[in-house]
Order: sequence, then C-alpha cells, then structure tokens
Amino acid sequence: MNSAFKKIGLVSLAAVSLTLTLAGCSTSNSSNNSTSGNGASGGSAAVAFKGSANETYYMVTFLSGIEYWKGVYAGMQAAAKDLGVKTVYTGASQYDINQEVTTMQQIIAKKPAGILVTSINAKAMTPVINQAIAAGIPVISFDSDAPDSNRYAYLGTSNFEAGQKAADYLGQALNGKGQVAVVTTPGELNLDQRTQGFTSEMKAKYPNVQVVATENGNSDQIKTAQVVSALLQRYPNLSGIFADEADEGTGSATAVKEDNKTGSVKIVSFDTDKSTLDAIQGGTITATIAQGTWNMGFWGLMDAFTIHHDMLHPVANWQTAHVDPVPPSVDTGVTVITKSNVNAYLQQ
Amino acid sequence: MNSAFKKIGLVSLAAVSLTLTLAGCSTSNSSNNSTSGNGASGGSAAVAFKGSANETYYMVTFLSGIEYWKGVYAGMQAAAKDLGVKTVYTGASQYDINQEVTTMQQIIAKKPAGILVTSINAKAMTPVINQAIAAGIPVISFDSDAPDSNRYAYLGTSNFEAGQKAADYLGQALNGKGQVAVVTTPGELNLDQRTQGFTSEMKAKYPNVQVVATENGNSDQIKTAQVVSALLQRYPNLSGIFADEADEGTGSATAVKEDNKTGSVKIVSFDTDKSTLDAIQGGTITATIAQGTWNMGFWGLMDAFTIHHDMLHPVANWQTAHVDPVPPSVDTGVTVITKSNVNAYLQQ
Repeated sequence: MNSAFKKIGLVSLAAVSLTLTLAGCSTSNSSNNSTSGNGASGGSAAVAFKGSANETYYMVTFLSGIEYWKGVYAGMQAAAKDLGVKTVYTGASQYDINQEVTTMQQIIAKKPAGILVTSINAKAMTPVINQAIAAGIPVISFDSDAPDSNRYAYLGTSNFEAGQKAADYLGQALNGKGQVAVVTTPGELNLDQRTQGFTSEMKAKYPNVQVVATENGNSDQIKTAQVVSALLQRYPNLSGIFADEADEGTGSATAVKEDNKTGSVKIVSFDTDKSTLDAIQGGTITATIAQGTWNMGFWGLMDAFTIHHDMLHPVANWQTAHVDPVPPSVDTGVTVITKSNVNAYLQQ
Repeated sequence: MNSAFKKIGLVSLAAVSLTLTLAGCSTSNSSNNSTSGNGASGGSAAVAFKGSANETYYMVTFLSGIEYWKGVYAGMQAAAKDLGVKTVYTGASQYDINQEVTTMQQIIAKKPAGILVTSINAKAMTPVINQAIAAGIPVISFDSDAPDSNRYAYLGTSNFEAGQKAADYLGQALNGKGQVAVVTTPGELNLDQRTQGFTSEMKAKYPNVQVVATENGNSDQIKTAQVVSALLQRYPNLSGIFADEADEGTGSATAVKEDNKTGSVKIVSFDTDKSTLDAIQGGTITATIAQGTWNMGFWGLMDAFTIHHDMLHPVANWQTAHVDPVPPSVDTGVTVITKSNVNAYLQQ
C-alpha cells in the first residue's frame, strides 16, 4: 500500500468501510473480534500439499561433489518428505559449462515435475532454462542466478546484508572500538557486496572501529596466510579480521596463530565448511556467517511443487497475464555461528 | 557458494568428489543419471501440510476496510484452503496506532496458530509483535514491515524494482525516445524508492528518454490534476508520465484527458484500484504496476504454518541457535497491467 491511505480522512474512511467491509471474506464464519472489517473462513480438511508417488523433482548443480550444495539438497529432501514426492540430486561434476547444459537437457527429456538449478554461468544456462520452462517444467533458480532467464524465482543470499551482519557481530565483539581489516577477492561480485556491506555498516554503526586495510586473499589459504602475516606486522594493534570467503578465513587463522595472536585478533569468516566449524570450536576463528542453504532447497521445492500443481491463481490465466505465480526473489538469510551455537551445525 | 569453488583444480576436485559424493543423499534410491554425484530419495505418502480443524491464523491490518488488503487476504485464504486451516481477517478500522496495538493484544490472548501483520508504525508495533513471538505465536510481517521486531519474515514489494519495471515498460512504449515526467509524493520512503528506480533505469537503459520534471501530486487526485495541467503547458511535447501512486495516476489521467492528449501522453500508474483498472480498459491510463499482494498472503501463511508445525529443522535447536526458520525477506514481485491483461484482474 502507500502513503495515500494515511491521508484518507476519517469521514471518507467511514464511507469506504461501508462499501468494502467483508467484501473479501465471502466464506465467512462467525468471528467474535471487536474491531470492524473482520471475517473468518476456512477449516476444511484439505490435502492439497500432497504429491504423487512418481512425481520427481531434480536439483542441478555444478562441481556437484562439493560440500556446500549438501545443505541445499537437505532442505529440498525435507520438503519432499513432507510433500510425498521424490527428489534426484545431479549436476556437472566439474566446473564445466557444457557439462551442466548437457545435464539440464538430459533431465528435460525425462519430463520431471520440476527443476531447482544453480547456474555455473547465467548467459550459458539461460537458453536451456527457457527450454525447460517452454516444455512446461517449473524451474527455480538458487544460489547462482540466471536473472534474464524465464525461471520463476531466485532464492539466495543477500551478500550486502551478510556483510552487514558480520560488521554488527565484530563491532559488538570489539566493544565498538579498534582496528580491523577485510580479506576478500576483489572483482567477484558476491564477495564485493559482502565487503561493501561490512565496511558501510561499520562506518555507520561503529565509528570508532577503523577498517585499516582491505587485502586480496585470492580465495586461497596459503596466499591469505601470507598477506595476513604481513598485515599483522604493519598493524600490530589489529584486533579483528573479516574474511568474506571460507579459505581466506582458515588462511587468516593460520597467520594469526603463527603470530601467537589467537583470540586477541578476532576472525569472522564465511560459510560452514567442516574446517571452519572445527576452527570455531577450537577457538582460532571467532565466528562465521552461515548462508541459508536449507531454505533455498526447502522453499525452492515448495515453489516448484505449487506451480506444478497449479495451486497459484492470483488472477485468472496468470500465465498469459504474465503474473509472478511465486515471489520472484527470496533472501534466504544468514546466521552468525560462534562457539555458543556451533555444535548445532556440527551435528547436522 | 563463492568464487573459491571456481578455482579448485580438476585434480583436487577429484579428491573432493571421492569423499563427498552422495554423502548428502543417505536415503538413496537408484538413479540412472549419467553424471556423477547423483542420488534419489523420497516418494513416501506424507500429509505433513495438513492443519487441524481448530487451527486459526489471523491477518491484522490498519484501515482494515480498504480494497488493497483484499488481495493479500485472498492469497491467505487460498493457502488456508489448501492446508485445511481457518483464517480470520481483522485490524484497526481507522488509521490509529493504538487501535492496531489493541487488536494485536486481543488476538494474542486467543492463542492463535499464527499472525500475519502489516504495521501502521514500525516502532509502535514492535513491542506487541515481540510479545506474540514470546508467547510462541509465529508472526509474519507483510507490506509495511517492523524490521527491528522479532517477526520471522517480511514479505513485500521491492519498490526500487517496481520503479525499474515502470521505466522499462514506458521506455519501450515510447520506442526509446521522448520527454517524460514523474508524479510522486516526495518524502514517503516507498514512493521515493519507486521514483529512484524509475529515473535510474530510464537513464541507464533509455538514454534518449528525458525525465524533464518530478512533480509533487501529494497523493491526491485534484492536486495532481492541477500540477499535471501546468506540466502539460510547460512541456507541450511531453509523451509519458509515471505516477507512482494510485490517486496521482487517476489525477494525471483527468488532466491529460482535459487537454485532449489521451493516448499521446502515456500514463503508467501504480496499484490496482477499480478506478485505475477501469481507466486502463477505457484507455486513459496505459499501464499500471500491480503489487504481489496475493503472494504476500499465500506465502505468509505458508511461513506461519511451517513454523507452527515445527517443520523446519535446518539445524538442531534452530531457535536457540538463532537460525532463520524461513527466508527472512521475500520480494513478492510486481506485474505490469495493460489493456491486454487487465480483464484477468477485473475478473478477480
């Protein structure tokens, strides 16, 4: 809604209420609410959210063996269990554009109920995603989007806000003062957004925390350990590091440990690789930012299921009216993991 | 995921695949996919998405009689029917902060299964939202958020992107050239974001379309008709207007019609008030931007239901681990409505 509603005078509002009250509540039951404009409905014994035994949804990734996707597939499996449908995990085993496109084509030929896909390359994947949509297969994008394709929705992390959360955690952990540095890989869009979120939030909310340096860790443990070692020489009073990528987090921990500064230089890392979680438990990394991978899989499947079952009718003929049948963009959230809640993640 | 994965060499990748392949697919069935890292699971006859007959979810609004909320409640009712639960529509009938807070308190006392709420004022509503959460009631925020409260999620329009969509439509309708103006109410955050999205998109994608003026329509039809009449005198070659609020859209149409310029000055308005849809059918307004109100209600209830039924377990003890049980922020999308699809909306 918008500001106009605030300006409706009480006199004209009374008239509006007369004509519109309860108009949206055609299946009304009794309601004992005291305010006006009320109405109750529903309560039938529906089983709309129940799939058929041969209904199969696919998840398609690249570098399909890496740990990161497991969290997404776990969410998808949980929703599939609740809905009574099947899932298949697949993808390109290597970082190979052609292999992911071919995998998509093989899956389209099977006429599945839906596909959840993360795109190795937006441009290269767009035609094959559109081919699936044209074949009547709901496609939902997660983590790495193909924004110009016809996919119905994208579910992923707001990297800017993830950086802000890291700044809020570190700013508070340092009691709002000290020198900190960022380790990142400049030029990678998602990492740049994390850095921007971190530095802008620190500046806005923790004016006595100085971001003294932004280093290039090249997404590599050894390279990061080298640049952080040099950093610790240059800034002997450094009290915090935000490493916005997992290998840069563990690399930073190595350098800090070698300099006997574990704990006095607090490290905030990214993602939930086993080595990062172990480092949190061991105290060499203070916190890490976990992405909402489970949400991507769970709600991605819910989207695909509701489209496949044509449960969404915001308007008559939504397809030809070009209405979004599901929310087109979903921020799946991040969580700050520290020693106090790391066990919950290690037990997964 | 992030850039690091792209840098894993094929040699090290093979090792990763050996240890991680299928580890996330413990309930594997057979799969005939040719790529590695695959696994299938699921297919049980679940009825998890089924509520009980006495399970009631409330929707709480302010100015509860206005037409705009009907679209949200229709989405909520659709999901409730699918889930087999009850809904009650309620709210403050007037633009009255105390009345909405009191309504919330009355509903909390009923111990409902969940609440979907749009906040008249974020600060004033935060304590009562937190009171509901503390009482174990899932609260989902829509349209007007209370971002600093403990609500689990917010579902609403990305106003910046809505403005971009308006610019894309108008830019194309004008074949990429001409003079256009914006009518808005400066100082209202959501309207300012629409204006910013419109002007930045126009500048970036349609360099030969000039935004010659930004006028204050004061969210009022009569005031808007006056400023637009003056605007048409000042810019006799004006070929487009973006009115980012409904009354400013109908007010613009009045002025353009009086100046005998219907059609030669294309108007893009906002929201789907009956008068706006009628004007599109009649040709005095060219297009309007519809918000995803149905999505707010449908997916807001899905969020509340899954939290109430504790269906979301991204980690053990997600409550104490401070994990988001549902995606915290959902962009519910917008649709461009023109003569070609307006009937679908009028039939609702």
